[in-house]
Amino acid sequence: MEMKQINDLREIQLKIEELTHAYVQCIDDNRLEEWPEFFTEDCLYQIISRENDERNFPASLIYCDSKGMLKDRITAHRQANIFEAHVYRHIVSSIRITSHENDTYTVHSNYAVFQTRVNGNSEVYNVGKYIDKVIFEDDQPKFKEKKVIYDTLVIPTLLVTPI
Amino acid sequence: MEMKQINDLREIQLKIEELTHAYVQCIDDNRLEEWPEFFTEDCLYQIISRENDERNFPASLIYCDSKGMLKDRITAHRQANIFEAHVYRHIVSSIRITSHENDTYTVHSNYAVFQTRVNGNSEVYNVGKYIDKVIFEDDQPKFKEKKVIYDTLVIPTLLVTPI
Amino acid sequence: MEMKQINDLREIQLKIEELTHAYVQCIDDNRLEEWPEFFTEDCLYQIISRENDERNFPASLIYCDSKGMLKDRITAHRQANIFEAHVYRHIVSSIRITSHENDTYTVHSNYAVFQTRVNGNSEVYNVGKYIDKVIFEDDQPKFKEKKVIYDTLVIPTLLVTPI
Repeated sequence: MEMKQINDLREIQLKIEELTHAYVQCIDDNRLEEWPEFFTEDCLYQIISRENDERNFPASLIYCDSKGMLKDRITAHRQANIFEAHVYRHIVSSIRITSHENDTYTVHSNYAVFQTRVNGNSEVYNVGKYIDKVIFEDDQPKFKEKKVIYDTLVIPTLLVTPI
Repeated sequence: MEMKQINDLREIQLKIEELTHAYVQCIDDNRLEEWPEFFTEDCLYQIISRENDERNFPASLIYCDSKGMLKDRITAHRQANIFEAHVYRHIVSSIRITSHENDTYTVHSNYAVFQTRVNGNSEVYNVGKYIDKVIFEDDQPKFKEKKVIYDTLVIPTLLVTPI
Repeated sequence: MEMKQINDLREIQLKIEELTHAYVQCIDDNRLEEWPEFFTEDCLYQIISRENDERNFPASLIYCDSKGMLKDRITAHRQANIFEAHVYRHIVSSIRITSHENDTYTVHSNYAVFQTRVNGNSEVYNVGKYIDKVIFEDDQPKFKEKKVIYDTLVIPTLLVTPI
């Protein structure tokens, strides 16, 4: 490969890492109103169990297929949550571009989310992997798809904050 | 941006990542005498709860504003700790330069620290975020400021090892 | 250092990170048959407690010194495991090249593995560090040595999946 191509690929890798980091810090800082902006207008955000994903069962905990739905979700979340009972902390690792087709990059990564409740204890809340499809709009990476495939089956289904 | 500028910025990003990695491995390897060397002479190291930080309450668990104080802290820690009762393991992710002014880079990252006690069990000890100010001295990155903002409120206050 | 040398070193760093990421995702996806391919033919894979490693006690939980042994291990694991009772999720951070001699790079990193059991709960399974020796075969990085030094002493010794 030419040096320029390698540099371009590395630049894309680093931009996608930056996207992922900014994404989780946005959630952890509870700036949820900014969260939909990480996605393209016409997007897919899905939270699905590892079991269902492996068996190709479509049943998801969350399934949003437009940025509008993501915004609605946050509005509902804010109205339903009377007080801030929990805080979250994401750790993401192993962000890898596994393939790319035209301008779409498929990216795999592992995550662990820790929850700290009002009693001050931090616990493993949810672990799993992200499978993302990233495109660049005006040189800015965006999630065209973000599939959250969780290992942890014990998850409160009522009011899930984004993962 | 010019290719050279991009390369310079990437180089700085990678050096700051390396600084952070070396920092946590120093603590995890219990080489605490080397720990102050990650800081500038005139520095700030602070461990503060998320709650206090968000409300601008100054009360911190630890507040050291010089490298001398960091060294004193380690000396005290070594003398007070009669035996090594716990070991620590840091996982850091999402190291991002969020801004830079003159030669000072502001860097955000997330961390999780696991503690393994003498019974051999590993547990989530503390999770939170770092907000660092990094400068370069003779091409070596150093922490001018390291603010540890923890989510986990249940933390033994008596003898805190660095986080 | 010349720009080219810096670029070469960065390229090596990124390739070693990619190797580590692909390695853990292979285990987490339960594609264990592919796992030995991350190693050279003549290799060392060792899982040893932090205590034994620090005291230079040789007793290891796992000690395999060829790719053939790694393959045997997976075969045994598959035959002994009648059903998939657990899934694993690795988080790796702080991947650092700490030295290199000729074509061998010594790499340190921290890991945390979470286990999700059939009841759906995710727990901290094992934390520790990797000390790896990486060489390049036809431009592909491989583990010549992978030493898993674990903090967590409570670990089922009967059927350890690779860490």
